[in-house]
Amino acid sequence: MPEKLYIGMAGFGTVGRGVYTVLKRNAEIIERRSGHALEIKTIVCRDIKKAHDFANEANIVNDLNAIIDDPEISIAVEVMGGIKPAKSFILNAIRNGKDVVTANKALLATHGDEIFREAQKHNRRVYFEASVAGGIPIIKALREGLAANQIFEITGILNGTCNYILSSMHQSPVSFEDALKEAQKLGYAEADPTFDIEGLDTGHKLTILSALAFGTPYQFDSSRVCGITSVSSTDVKYAQKFGFVIKLLAIARKNKDNISFSVSPTLVPENTFLAHVNAAMNAVEIKSDALGTSFYYGAGAGGEPTASAVLADLVDLARGNQVSMPLSEANSVALMPIDAVNDKNYIRLHAPLINEKAGLVEQIFKQFDIRIDKEMSEENNLVFITHECSENRFSSALDRIRRSFGETIAIHVMKIKK
Amino acid sequence: MPEKLYIGMAGFGTVGRGVYTVLKRNAEIIERRSGHALEIKTIVCRDIKKAHDFANEANIVNDLNAIIDDPEISIAVEVMGGIKPAKSFILNAIRNGKDVVTANKALLATHGDEIFREAQKHNRRVYFEASVAGGIPIIKALREGLAANQIFEITGILNGTCNYILSSMHQSPVSFEDALKEAQKLGYAEADPTFDIEGLDTGHKLTILSALAFGTPYQFDSSRVCGITSVSSTDVKYAQKFGFVIKLLAIARKNKDNISFSVSPTLVPENTFLAHVNAAMNAVEIKSDALGTSFYYGAGAGGEPTASAVLADLVDLARGNQVSMPLSEANSVALMPIDAVNDKNYIRLHAPLINEKAGLVEQIFKQFDIRIDKEMSEENNLVFITHECSENRFSSALDRIRRSFGETIAIHVMKIKK
Repeated sequence: MPEKLYIGMAGFGTVGRGVYTVLKRNAEIIERRSGHALEIKTIVCRDIKKAHDFANEANIVNDLNAIIDDPEISIAVEVMGGIKPAKSFILNAIRNGKDVVTANKALLATHGDEIFREAQKHNRRVYFEASVAGGIPIIKALREGLAANQIFEITGILNGTCNYILSSMHQSPVSFEDALKEAQKLGYAEADPTFDIEGLDTGHKLTILSALAFGTPYQFDSSRVCGITSVSSTDVKYAQKFGFVIKLLAIARKNKDNISFSVSPTLVPENTFLAHVNAAMNAVEIKSDALGTSFYYGAGAGGEPTASAVLADLVDLARGNQVSMPLSEANSVALMPIDAVNDKNYIRLHAPLINEKAGLVEQIFKQFDIRIDKEMSEENNLVFITHECSENRFSSALDRIRRSFGETIAIHVMKIKK
Repeated sequence: MPEKLYIGMAGFGTVGRGVYTVLKRNAEIIERRSGHALEIKTIVCRDIKKAHDFANEANIVNDLNAIIDDPEISIAVEVMGGIKPAKSFILNAIRNGKDVVTANKALLATHGDEIFREAQKHNRRVYFEASVAGGIPIIKALREGLAANQIFEITGILNGTCNYILSSMHQSPVSFEDALKEAQKLGYAEADPTFDIEGLDTGHKLTILSALAFGTPYQFDSSRVCGITSVSSTDVKYAQKFGFVIKLLAIARKNKDNISFSVSPTLVPENTFLAHVNAAMNAVEIKSDALGTSFYYGAGAGGEPTASAVLADLVDLARGNQVSMPLSEANSVALMPIDAVNDKNYIRLHAPLINEKAGLVEQIFKQFDIRIDKEMSEENNLVFITHECSENRFSSALDRIRRSFGETIAIHVMKIKK
């Protein structure tokens, strides 16, 4: 008989319940694949009574030390979220000799180095497949499947709430506000959706992917992130007319001397895989030297999909797999906003009678040597798709337009995915 | 300093050279991720002189025993292909205490059980990521990423040659024969393309995926496989008119009492990921209980993409990862052709003046309770898309049509992907 492994789980919300349910349902498969029976010995959560209704057999308490101090528990699962008390729970579990599985992207994106260093020091392992893109095994693909590759670029649709809202806005001409309300009604957006719609959650996840791919530090910086609150139904309409779909893309790219990092609404050509990622689904595209372009798609949130990732980590730990802790590298290059690169751009100028001044705008673009690929003029909107041009020249042209038209003009700009 | 691992590689064609090249180029990354320097100590191939021109530093010989009998070599890489002498090479390497990495789908699909049992007996590991879908880490996703899931269905586009030919036929109205010739000219099809275009290569790969997902035996049976030689430009045209794309799909599906298994040209709705897998690319869609639908896409062949998979296996072995050998299960259910299931179907009846007899055909379908979803009648072709119906009723209806129209009629039938 293989040894039984005892697990302590901190947190019993959607993900924790998913882990409990799937482990129970698929116990036999999991035991066969991991070589061990896995048992959730202790669950720590706030509402003990409610948890008991769901998991009547487990030992349910509200003290994290019940896991940390139990020598029989060899793996601590952290699915509480947030920084406090998740961080100290994980650090103390490591110090007490436990391996850790966490789904906590906010924590890793800000304190990943400290946690992985502590794990390395104590010869413990911290696994975190569930922290990015839910059940898609993207951490595994990046660290193991593509282990022999130099990574050039990672592009992700990493937040189900944003993708659900944007997908709705492409299906019918609703405003962002109405699409958000509908998403909240259906449970795809939280009562306070700030964290999702402002791009912070996406930024956390990209910070983790970028650390794995490029060794950049676990130092999430919200200034590099733009969410979807400014995407209007008008922009969606024009994007579609030009053959694009607007997605909140997270992009980390290796340049000569730095890693560029951006989270922002981006026009994606409609004949690509990324454009077909609809509703609350997630996806990641990786460009690397040996493999070329690869693409991974699946459910990025929800109890059971996320549980699938947590349990995959538990199986890996049970098998005794060794993956070195993904510390950011001493010589890691700085994260930079995407600016030195050449992109195609979408620009919509909105002002009364702007249509009569198309010639003036075209002249300005010409002055800055920016070639126009497509143009559309209607209803006080003047819309352009440019050819690739440097960010500097493009900003200068926008400045000139602003100065030429004064305060009456509204300028809406988005990048176009290469 | 971590211990250096010595590798012996049998075979130095496209894949072998890819492994050599990528290992050399990315040595530092690979050492960091695996914890060991990996060195190809010995290469065994037929044309030693030609190999020396490519890899001037390596020890190149034409005797497989140079690997098998070398106690310093701990990992044998088999990238020769074919059954003889690959099988005995792998078995002898295992018996001499070596772990094995192989890209050989034909061998595993027919002798996988024998090889994995031998590995288990000698406490060795046989890794084979490169055997299915080239560089896409699909074996890893299925065995590890989805380790906690019950798999319901696997659908794959697993042969680059077939997909290249079919993609060409959808881009312009060329015949299968002309598309094949063009593919041969461009290096996407071999001089003797039988193995690819008859679906055998796809069948081998599906046999491996099915064994991993469902525990079915490694006993490839060519009778369950249909290739693409009968796909005509006329069928491509009608498929497109109805909103579909024809792909050679490999499908393994868990039913109540058995596993259905099929490789055949299939109509895929054009708004799906699978329909967008073009040129020589591969993809796999997996349906499972916890994660739901996930999708994986990338290069399925070629030197460096396949090398990416071989090297990922080497990194896993170097890390000391343990995955139990995927023996087929004692109680494994039999593979069955897909027949008990309900599918939508495409039927094209071709005969002089068939268009005038649409009423008769509709009547036959009605007799067998088969509802028609779409219908098109032109140029001696009468084309139907049915609603879902049982395979039995559908075959009976086809028999009746055959009897009613006699030998003058040609009947072309394909399944439609759910």
